[in-house]
Amino acid sequence: MSATEPGAGAGPRPAGPPDLGALVHPGSVAIVGASADPTRIGGRPIAYMLRGGFSGRILPVNPNRSEVQGLPCYASVDALPEAPDVAVVAVPGAAALAAVDDLGRRGTRAAIVFTAGYAEVDAAGAAAQDRLVAAARRHGMRLLGPNCLGLFDQATGFYPIFTASLEGGLPLPGRIGIASQSGAYGTHLFTVARDRHIGTAMLVTTGNQADLDLADVIAWMARDEGVEVIMAYAEGVRDGDAFARALAAARAARKPVIAMKVGRSAVGGAAAQSHTASIAGNDAVFDAVLAEHGALRARTTEELIDIAYAATRRIYPVGNTLGVITISGGAGVLIADAAEAAGLAMPEMPRAAQGRLRAILPYAAPRNPVDCTAQAFNDLSLVGRFTETMIAEGGYRSILAFFTQIGGAPSLAPGIRRELNAVMARHPDRLAVLCVLASPERVREYERDGYLVFEDPSRAVVAIDAMGRLGEGFAAGPLGAPPEVPPVPLPDRTPSEAQAKRLLAAAGIAAVPERACASPEAAVEAAQALGWPVVMKILSPDILHKTEIGGVVLGVADAAAARTAYAALLARAAAAAPGARIDGVLVARQLAGGVECILGIHQDPAFGPVAMFGLGGLFVEVMRDVVFRRCPFGEDVAEAMIRAIRGAPLLTGVRGRGPADIPALARMLARLSVLAAQAGPRLAGIDLNPVIALPAGEGAFAADAVVTVRDAG
Amino acid sequence: MSATEPGAGAGPRPAGPPDLGALVHPGSVAIVGASADPTRIGGRPIAYMLRGGFSGRILPVNPNRSEVQGLPCYASVDALPEAPDVAVVAVPGAAALAAVDDLGRRGTRAAIVFTAGYAEVDAAGAAAQDRLVAAARRHGMRLLGPNCLGLFDQATGFYPIFTASLEGGLPLPGRIGIASQSGAYGTHLFTVARDRHIGTAMLVTTGNQADLDLADVIAWMARDEGVEVIMAYAEGVRDGDAFARALAAARAARKPVIAMKVGRSAVGGAAAQSHTASIAGNDAVFDAVLAEHGALRARTTEELIDIAYAATRRIYPVGNTLGVITISGGAGVLIADAAEAAGLAMPEMPRAAQGRLRAILPYAAPRNPVDCTAQAFNDLSLVGRFTETMIAEGGYRSILAFFTQIGGAPSLAPGIRRELNAVMARHPDRLAVLCVLASPERVREYERDGYLVFEDPSRAVVAIDAMGRLGEGFAAGPLGAPPEVPPVPLPDRTPSEAQAKRLLAAAGIAAVPERACASPEAAVEAAQALGWPVVMKILSPDILHKTEIGGVVLGVADAAAARTAYAALLARAAAAAPGARIDGVLVARQLAGGVECILGIHQDPAFGPVAMFGLGGLFVEVMRDVVFRRCPFGEDVAEAMIRAIRGAPLLTGVRGRGPADIPALARMLARLSVLAAQAGPRLAGIDLNPVIALPAGEGAFAADAVVTVRDAG
Repeated sequence: MSATEPGAGAGPRPAGPPDLGALVHPGSVAIVGASADPTRIGGRPIAYMLRGGFSGRILPVNPNRSEVQGLPCYASVDALPEAPDVAVVAVPGAAALAAVDDLGRRGTRAAIVFTAGYAEVDAAGAAAQDRLVAAARRHGMRLLGPNCLGLFDQATGFYPIFTASLEGGLPLPGRIGIASQSGAYGTHLFTVARDRHIGTAMLVTTGNQADLDLADVIAWMARDEGVEVIMAYAEGVRDGDAFARALAAARAARKPVIAMKVGRSAVGGAAAQSHTASIAGNDAVFDAVLAEHGALRARTTEELIDIAYAATRRIYPVGNTLGVITISGGAGVLIADAAEAAGLAMPEMPRAAQGRLRAILPYAAPRNPVDCTAQAFNDLSLVGRFTETMIAEGGYRSILAFFTQIGGAPSLAPGIRRELNAVMARHPDRLAVLCVLASPERVREYERDGYLVFEDPSRAVVAIDAMGRLGEGFAAGPLGAPPEVPPVPLPDRTPSEAQAKRLLAAAGIAAVPERACASPEAAVEAAQALGWPVVMKILSPDILHKTEIGGVVLGVADAAAARTAYAALLARAAAAAPGARIDGVLVARQLAGGVECILGIHQDPAFGPVAMFGLGGLFVEVMRDVVFRRCPFGEDVAEAMIRAIRGAPLLTGVRGRGPADIPALARMLARLSVLAAQAGPRLAGIDLNPVIALPAGEGAFAADAVVTVRDAG
Repeated sequence: MSATEPGAGAGPRPAGPPDLGALVHPGSVAIVGASADPTRIGGRPIAYMLRGGFSGRILPVNPNRSEVQGLPCYASVDALPEAPDVAVVAVPGAAALAAVDDLGRRGTRAAIVFTAGYAEVDAAGAAAQDRLVAAARRHGMRLLGPNCLGLFDQATGFYPIFTASLEGGLPLPGRIGIASQSGAYGTHLFTVARDRHIGTAMLVTTGNQADLDLADVIAWMARDEGVEVIMAYAEGVRDGDAFARALAAARAARKPVIAMKVGRSAVGGAAAQSHTASIAGNDAVFDAVLAEHGALRARTTEELIDIAYAATRRIYPVGNTLGVITISGGAGVLIADAAEAAGLAMPEMPRAAQGRLRAILPYAAPRNPVDCTAQAFNDLSLVGRFTETMIAEGGYRSILAFFTQIGGAPSLAPGIRRELNAVMARHPDRLAVLCVLASPERVREYERDGYLVFEDPSRAVVAIDAMGRLGEGFAAGPLGAPPEVPPVPLPDRTPSEAQAKRLLAAAGIAAVPERACASPEAAVEAAQALGWPVVMKILSPDILHKTEIGGVVLGVADAAAARTAYAALLARAAAAAPGARIDGVLVARQLAGGVECILGIHQDPAFGPVAMFGLGGLFVEVMRDVVFRRCPFGEDVAEAMIRAIRGAPLLTGVRGRGPADIPALARMLARLSVLAAQAGPRLAGIDLNPVIALPAGEGAFAADAVVTVRDAG
């Protein structure tokens, strides 16, 4: 562990997801470093709790004052009239350590440490942070921070937080929980939400995460009754298992997790490491872990809030379809484009229903999008009849109405609400979304009626699609069990290709039929047995990437060619890798008509062994068309991975080309994942590249295999 | 032309971009069908013009009234005291035709026809529309519409438009022009802009485009002094040349065009055709034409307005780079991720400057993003010193400051403005963008100072990147001339592969060395002359897609194999295509070590011959990694196309693989484009698939060629 990694040297973290009840719903809170000035760090929490009507006892601690903001103030932690359930620590350096120790001794169960200057600064800070955590752990106390902005719980008026954002207004009641590593970004999220009139139940910022981390907060929010939708902001993941468990807990509670993780780009990744004390996991693996648990990753802040806002309706359609009613044909097409880009189905209205719509309104375009034109608003009952027909006969799980400024017109909006409300009362399970341009007050009215309101139709489509994806995640049945794979002992060091293939074969992973040959004559004999043509490859534990030294000869067609190739391979190896141990040459059958794939394993620092699948070849490498998954998993997951790449049609069949043996590929991938999970951390990586997927029924075979093992210590 | 195509049968359109001065800046306007009710279609224009203080004369026409909304009203067009410069026609059916005729006779120069029920409805409507246009053309009068919502010009208070949106407020003064086929969507755009406090100079909706179309409006806005930024909404393009000329005129005037075109998706395309009377061009070709002229295509309405808003600053950086100053490290990383996704460069601060920033503020992260943390706001002079250092020493063309709620705090915002203004006064050529959460009033203050203000950092990045792309478009030098290609006469009907290759050879497009052979012995002789191995292909003018019938044999290595292949090819052709004329077999050298590409030509209904370039092979077909360009063009454009595909690294060199002969490929592509442009509309298409691009210096050769010709009539 690096010197700046939080928690190093502070002793082991307590196991399992912690009970944060005392932290977020305390009966009493001490403010160590309380200030009479409501704009100071030690003054803001008190001012906000007084304003928010905190239901518990507020206990200021400051040796220089007997009263703070109208409350009795105590000289020290020891002088407090009771052991507070939780305490805010807003005093510098050494005093913070002393405060944590004092609080722990008195039996306080959690501390929120605002104090900065720890692991985010330098090695000395990291050491001080370790001492802070060690002090807390001695007393069984949990820490939020240090270097955190604090938290709030709206319902109880609990505001141990020093953001200036609350000057602009306390949170509105709501069901969204925000879990954020970054204090500034977490409050930015909350502020944008508040300005959009979206309520927030709870915000928890984790700062340096010396003890409690994002996974703990997500796991808590999965339990907390006040939170129904979780927004998470992550810079990295330290404990992949805990993070995955937290996501699983949220899914089990049917609470969507919508995550923003920064560091996707090269520049971003470098910046993330320069400013945060977290160990970032691989970005693509993070995506895979979210997908595994039905959680969503937002691409922008706006999307994060849009999706969370939509989720507050708690309507998660399974088999989502979108019906669009519009007063503008152009907007209807724009919405159809956006839906296709998102992968959201917009089936046509049934023919008979189209006829009925046209009978109601002859100039309507009734397919879907259903264009009723602005003229429909001359008779508002048409709005209700159209919407009812679309839901009842089109069966759409989600309805999007593009009414733009007409939906905001004072003369029309009440009638539109009346018509739509009558329809939606009959279909409370449908997601009803409006694109209207209206005053904030009118938007609130629509929202109170149960509609989601978006100004921009493309954003509405993304949010509607997200509800369907969440629904699929909640509805997903149990996964198939990973296959049984006999335990395969790893060798002490990285094996040769032939040894690697034997190891894989023991796990049920087939290689292309081949023989190791120690002489030209043996190679000829092997080729005759396997069938011409053959591939010949240099055989050495010291040469892993054979192509790069010319160590592979394809299409060897007869005995003379085999002898020539044998000599050439040995000569090239000697020239390119002098001193390498040479075990001879591998002779393998050259398989025709297959699709080249790549299967791999790498160790992610946070999430452990991760499997990768993609198509093989240089072009695919350029396009990075690959998919990841934590190991182990079953054949069902493996097949879903194979079908998820963009180039999947090459495997499922395209342009007169039949399907490849996907079951065989899936079996190989699932077995590889079990092998990797059983092998433990000494397995550094596996590359099966290429794997030849033959036509359906003919199998899949690894044509090359590299297994990299960390030397046994 | 189809029966519903507007303008069919109405006589030829006047040539060249029309002068719309009379239409948008008239001295007088008649309202035919004037209503006393300010909420009726014939009443709204009058009400809005009275409210907007129209500087010209408003002349209501209605046989049943002597006064309308306080203005004298005339019984007929003939009764008007003067010939109005322009007239609104808001009377139904036959009356509309009569009005147009009357107006034309009196010398009115343009009519805005609200009346609906024309080509958008049925064939009878299309015929009525033709009569309307014919009547206008008889008198040299131009028509906007029919079935259009009208237009407005903010500066002169000219509001011949019947949208209800103006009830919510007239437009704010501004420099944006909106050109929209759709009335509902055009006013939606305007309304969103107004609600964001973005001014609009002009809105013109073209409706059925029976006479004036979107290209005419864009071309006019390129000339009109009141418009500096053009938002365009298109459903299809009828006259590709006129559209391209309009874009070129806008670029010459340094006015950005930001376009939304719907119908990108399959569903969307179908919906567009069902609701509009326009002929949609190919969507990818539309993109190519925009790119050719430095215009941008927005993906969403929000993006359209964001980019237009940013463009109102009229700062279009060439060699755009982004410097980010942030109070949140996390937001900084998020912005870096967004910049990388957009392709916007964020170079690091110079080392020495990083040191200087750290000297100012020890805990700052000074690389870029520059994280000054919220604590920097304890001394506001730091904000100015940081920003100055970033611009002066980092040299960034664009600066994005993520100050979130701190930038909106009443206690801090005035000081922040003072500090930033002092810096920006020294660097007026830089694009300065703020991410702040502030009251609308405070946002206006920042905007008046010259800043762009965005709530969402990702949206800010997209808009900043767009300004750089516009700058590159404006700065682009003249393109190289298309190569000289001798005119090649097209045969009367689709030629055989060998004939096609001779045709291409005459244009300087080389095929793989090959010979047509009429007997097995001739094939053996040809292969010996060309060098083994060879490819053998069936030779028939009636079999275009040889692979699909097994008409290609690869890797023919000797005389015996050549004889076998010859017989097999003839047998397969006879089985798969009985009756096809068989001219023998083509024998071609089999080229090794090349990259397979595809070069093609197709005729776009609006834009004429369009060239396509992509990598070859099934995988590429699945990924659709291709690029388009109108013909003809020079080798510089061709090379840029080749480098623009995602798989370009395979041609430019990747992983130990050297570069392909890109100049030879570019030469071939440019010549193909000239050949296509010269060939005229009888050329239906060309497919060179594959073209083998050999390593640098070794050339590029078409291995197969299909030239499709429409039979000479």
